[in-house]
Amino acid sequence: MFITFEGTEGVGKSTQARLLHEYLTKQGKPCILVREPGGTIIGEQLRTILLDPRNTAMSAHCEALLYAAARAQLAHEVLLPALEQGTTVICDRYIHSSIAYQGFARGLGSETVDKINCFVKSTCMPDLTVFIDLPPNKKFRSSTVEGDRMESESEDFHNKVYMGFDRILRGDNVMRIVPEGDKYHTHERIVCALLERGIIQ
Amino acid sequence: MFITFEGTEGVGKSTQARLLHEYLTKQGKPCILVREPGGTIIGEQLRTILLDPRNTAMSAHCEALLYAAARAQLAHEVLLPALEQGTTVICDRYIHSSIAYQGFARGLGSETVDKINCFVKSTCMPDLTVFIDLPPNKKFRSSTVEGDRMESESEDFHNKVYMGFDRILRGDNVMRIVPEGDKYHTHERIVCALLERGIIQ
Repeated sequence: MFITFEGTEGVGKSTQARLLHEYLTKQGKPCILVREPGGTIIGEQLRTILLDPRNTAMSAHCEALLYAAARAQLAHEVLLPALEQGTTVICDRYIHSSIAYQGFARGLGSETVDKINCFVKSTCMPDLTVFIDLPPNKKFRSSTVEGDRMESESEDFHNKVYMGFDRILRGDNVMRIVPEGDKYHTHERIVCALLERGIIQ
Repeated sequence: MFITFEGTEGVGKSTQARLLHEYLTKQGKPCILVREPGGTIIGEQLRTILLDPRNTAMSAHCEALLYAAARAQLAHEVLLPALEQGTTVICDRYIHSSIAYQGFARGLGSETVDKINCFVKSTCMPDLTVFIDLPPNKKFRSSTVEGDRMESESEDFHNKVYMGFDRILRGDNVMRIVPEGDKYHTHERIVCALLERGIIQ
């Protein structure tokens, strides 16, 4: 099974992805946790370029292509071999982030992002996407003094990202979770929902 | 005018691009010379990743996406603004290299490479491509002891690249030059052909 976590900045995606990974590992299930962009040596090199706050000149097309390049490498080197071996893969962000960030918020359109991501679209799509459904809110923003290139974007930009997610993350292979209570409570709700759907056992 | 130089490794593309740039500059024509991948700060960072011989794990899709990302950034930051100002742009390699290397030699197919390059395909295509038409030959290979990641590929790979160029570089906006004699002789033939076609004056 291939499970991705999506949502705006600072809503707890990485925490929930990690808690689910810990849960499955404790259950003795073969399971790996990866993050985007990154997860491979080449992907981490691209992460550095993508999130470097000095790279203000980066065009929206270049940005979309770099996220897609890191993703293609991750699929080739990690995701496809792991899934073939029956290992569950949990991924912190995936193609829906590209559609929300570059397609909607940067204005490239979802069709262009789909074209650029034709490789993973045809070979390696998630079985389920968990959407941590919270609009961008200052209290959820990163507490670091200087944010990375994406975190540093305007409030308007992050509102557009949320609207993008809200529009595309619908249908059978999407699970929306509106966080309530603490992270452990949200984690339990995610596990229950995954068990109910038969995504995990 | 936007003029690109294409061909296999070590056939003299960079030399001919440079000689044409010098010729036009001496004539007082506004003209810039750029190379691919590179030509921007982000593009040069990507060039390092692309040509690093240690990056043997790079997938064909990742490679095609990284070349396209460097190209999109070059078009956005350098090519489109220069062309808009009436500056002639000479580019050492461009989209046809992606079709020959990743589309043909790596086997992705030209359609996939076209999709990935949808941005430059719709906004920034060359007025003329000069194809230095020489099959790969050991004596034309780089004289450096250790080649970069592309130069280090097999003879079979470089033969496929040549066949790819041979197949796609046809039609009105392509000029084939089979080098004869020294580089200055070839340069003169290129200048004469460009003058005849009215590409330069």
